[in-house]
Amino acid sequence: MEKNRQASIDLSHHLSGVAKARTSSPLKDLQKYFGKEGIIRLAGGLPSPEYFPFASITADALVPDAYSWTPDNRSPLAWIWNLFSATREKTTQVSIPKYPNKPEDLNLATALQYSLASGIPQLQEIVKTFTTQVYKPAYTDFKTFVHTGNTDGWFKTVGTLCNPGECVLASEWTYPSALAEMRPYGVRPVPVPMDGQGMRADALHKLLSEWDADARKMPSQATRHVHDPSWSDWCDNARCEEEIYDICVIFGGCATHLARAFSQRFEDVIFVEDDPYYFLQLGPYMARAERSPASVNGNDNEEYYLSQLVPSYLRFDYEGRVIRLDTFSKTIAPGCRLGWFTCNPVFAEKLERQAETSTQAPCGFGQALITTVLLNWQSAGYIRWLKGLKVQYKHRRDFFIDCLAEQFHLETEPAIHGMYEGCDVYHASQRSRVDKSGYLAEKSHPVVLFSFVPPASGMFVWLKINFDNHPALSTLGLEELENKLWVALAEAGVLFGPGNMFSATPVSEKEEGFGHFRVSFSNAKLEDLKRAVSIIAQVLKAFHQLD
Amino acid sequence: MEKNRQASIDLSHHLSGVAKARTSSPLKDLQKYFGKEGIIRLAGGLPSPEYFPFASITADALVPDAYSWTPDNRSPLAWIWNLFSATREKTTQVSIPKYPNKPEDLNLATALQYSLASGIPQLQEIVKTFTTQVYKPAYTDFKTFVHTGNTDGWFKTVGTLCNPGECVLASEWTYPSALAEMRPYGVRPVPVPMDGQGMRADALHKLLSEWDADARKMPSQATRHVHDPSWSDWCDNARCEEEIYDICVIFGGCATHLARAFSQRFEDVIFVEDDPYYFLQLGPYMARAERSPASVNGNDNEEYYLSQLVPSYLRFDYEGRVIRLDTFSKTIAPGCRLGWFTCNPVFAEKLERQAETSTQAPCGFGQALITTVLLNWQSAGYIRWLKGLKVQYKHRRDFFIDCLAEQFHLETEPAIHGMYEGCDVYHASQRSRVDKSGYLAEKSHPVVLFSFVPPASGMFVWLKINFDNHPALSTLGLEELENKLWVALAEAGVLFGPGNMFSATPVSEKEEGFGHFRVSFSNAKLEDLKRAVSIIAQVLKAFHQLD
Repeated sequence: MEKNRQASIDLSHHLSGVAKARTSSPLKDLQKYFGKEGIIRLAGGLPSPEYFPFASITADALVPDAYSWTPDNRSPLAWIWNLFSATREKTTQVSIPKYPNKPEDLNLATALQYSLASGIPQLQEIVKTFTTQVYKPAYTDFKTFVHTGNTDGWFKTVGTLCNPGECVLASEWTYPSALAEMRPYGVRPVPVPMDGQGMRADALHKLLSEWDADARKMPSQATRHVHDPSWSDWCDNARCEEEIYDICVIFGGCATHLARAFSQRFEDVIFVEDDPYYFLQLGPYMARAERSPASVNGNDNEEYYLSQLVPSYLRFDYEGRVIRLDTFSKTIAPGCRLGWFTCNPVFAEKLERQAETSTQAPCGFGQALITTVLLNWQSAGYIRWLKGLKVQYKHRRDFFIDCLAEQFHLETEPAIHGMYEGCDVYHASQRSRVDKSGYLAEKSHPVVLFSFVPPASGMFVWLKINFDNHPALSTLGLEELENKLWVALAEAGVLFGPGNMFSATPVSEKEEGFGHFRVSFSNAKLEDLKRAVSIIAQVLKAFHQLD
Repeated sequence: MEKNRQASIDLSHHLSGVAKARTSSPLKDLQKYFGKEGIIRLAGGLPSPEYFPFASITADALVPDAYSWTPDNRSPLAWIWNLFSATREKTTQVSIPKYPNKPEDLNLATALQYSLASGIPQLQEIVKTFTTQVYKPAYTDFKTFVHTGNTDGWFKTVGTLCNPGECVLASEWTYPSALAEMRPYGVRPVPVPMDGQGMRADALHKLLSEWDADARKMPSQATRHVHDPSWSDWCDNARCEEEIYDICVIFGGCATHLARAFSQRFEDVIFVEDDPYYFLQLGPYMARAERSPASVNGNDNEEYYLSQLVPSYLRFDYEGRVIRLDTFSKTIAPGCRLGWFTCNPVFAEKLERQAETSTQAPCGFGQALITTVLLNWQSAGYIRWLKGLKVQYKHRRDFFIDCLAEQFHLETEPAIHGMYEGCDVYHASQRSRVDKSGYLAEKSHPVVLFSFVPPASGMFVWLKINFDNHPALSTLGLEELENKLWVALAEAGVLFGPGNMFSATPVSEKEEGFGHFRVSFSNAKLEDLKRAVSIIAQVLKAFHQLD
């Protein structure tokens, strides 16, 4: 982590043609005088704030400890009943007036005016401090500045780093919207095999060392490390981040002999760490019987909590080749459409230019309201909020998997190859049931219906459906079968995320015999989650014609 | 207007390669089941609204008639003193709870959740109704849907209509940000000469009929009618919109014989009407002595007011070739980052796909707050608000030009050629002054320092600076001289918009002897506007070495 650490980094030669053509904005040229005291500004098309029809905005915000962090000791199941009842009424009131008492105070006259794309100053400061404290970047002059959510952050990043024809290295299963964004611009995903910790370091090394620039036509330039926790965090042990970073340094063309040898073949490898679920690191799943309140240490202090989080790539980024995307979508609300970039100053300047000529600054209402809540909560309060949130989603995950354990017979097995490698896989088969009369109503069926690894973070369980024994596999084919099951589930009243949407390559190229679904436990009411699992059991039984 | 009017329009062959590559989003595929009652939705990464830390948001909103529409009859100058004192305190309170009383009510649980890029339903309805009532589009199945402000709207439009190497026909002076957005993507502006009403129909006809596809390499595809009122609305008479529209129909390749003959030479001509100042149509300027309260008819009803507005191109758009961009930036606040597209369904579908993979929906806080205010005001209230706003900006324009008339000797002359053609131009020269002792302190100087046409709409006066007699013109050149004057003004305490930023072509290709500045009267305090004009007079005098 300390190797070659440098304070200042220039990767400007890695910007795409589009980014190079982006000159300083006219606004920027005026900035020297914009700040001048007493100057009369007649340059911009700024409406007078008098005419903003909002005199003030007030919000009832939840308090940082609205959700419990300490375990409930009353009974092992008490948390279920307390899950939502917690402290919904514990709110604090925050207000934003149009005109501030002190000029430096947050106010609507400024927040609702045209402003720099990098965000209102108070929010910039919050974001910079938070990034420094939580991610501890490996170099000092990194930049943070806001964007309008990670989807747009990724869109701007691809437009800044990639020319048409270039490639993005992506985990073989990745976020569909990220793929949909780059395809129209002729930027192509190149899948990298995964194991239980996400992208495989050995596979990445092999791919880069065998890279054929002629066949790929254009150099590879951006790696997306989709930190979608259904993938990269199945297992709870430390990830191979540093190993992956080091491979990219070797092949990246910056620092080493080997790199120069490769520099003819691709320009560089830049990391994009799209990490919306970072604060939902839930820890390992334990079966209900094994769980005890003691497993949650309610006395964790802030620094201890942060030190337990899987590190960001920023921590290893001594060459400035990471662009990290953070968002408030999962920690405050998706409608915020607010997040932030962390990257080196050269990339930052070009990304900001792009924002100025497209989205401009994020919405002033959102910026002002989130900033005022964060100012009210203060840094420690926001971290407390994140801890409470983590516990909520952990409960939800546990509840959902508990439901699976009730409906199916689950057996665990350590995976020794494939995308679960290094994790304990749960195989689900039909459960034998004893009916009221005491007879065995169904025979235990040995067929594995689906497999999964309980996610160590995020909002999703990834189900790998076993179609191997399905009577129609040979006639219908895998894709059609997956589609049929998805529709059967939807018709029965449960909506899953179709797995093929997440594939960086056509599903037909994937391993045979398995379909995939992404299932979210983040949003449904608990009784609906329970009902959904029961529907899944019925539909799978009918689908596999197990009667 | 009635010719060939059709209910349904398909211009899909005019979409760029990028747009064609944009397929339906995965989200869209799920929509059939999304709406299904009682279905348990486990597909998306939606956080539970329980965890949105906003229990409710309340705003003190100004009332629709906060600003006067009727003239103040107390004295011809009374409006100056009442300009800001008006009714700042007249507010109404609106609230948005997290959970609604009735499911169809606006609420934060929905507004702050992930949602369709087209906007929250209540806002979609408001925008559609308003567009129908105000712009009266010429065909029935037009679509409206929100975007994150016109800058981003234009960015998305260029990305949907233009491939690299293609051209945008633009007025010779146009909005700098629009130029800055398309240049990195290799989309080039082709300037069209202007007169006092904006783009010249005869010049456009000439340009299109002489279009050399070989020299331009790729077909022209989008026309931007920058409805920047410093340009297109100097004069108050009806514009030549319909004439321009008809020319584009002829050359556009859709309907006529002539078109087919031209279809080899460029693909089509699409209008993009970027129109942020539409509701600041201020009417003609009259010298202070000629103004009377009676010139404002306070009894105008809604329909009469709307009928007096210069029509949108939508009104003539019987072939669906107009994409109109509306924004709340100038009528509510720039920080809204909210506006809407109006266009044919084919373009709408592709623009929405682009939003889904970049900005997604506009910020939920902004959408919810603006929607709740507009619901409170109702349609008639919003139109009343726009009328009040217009009067405010009219006062500001009149005040600024009155100040110029105090500091300079103004003479009017009908322009018979060039970009002021059809308007009365004001030429400003140094004013002779009588000092306290009664002697002529300075001789009246016949040199015209600058010329302008009082804008009939918007927030800006465009100053055409006469450098013809400047001693250093031959040595320094025009651009350097304009730059020197801009810096001299800034150093003296007044910030102008540099004219060269607004030029669709390098300034060196423009008519010789003139520099240009865009001056905003929208935002500064009145006493600062007055002081600015006095500084301008001093700086120009020194700059031209008139002593």
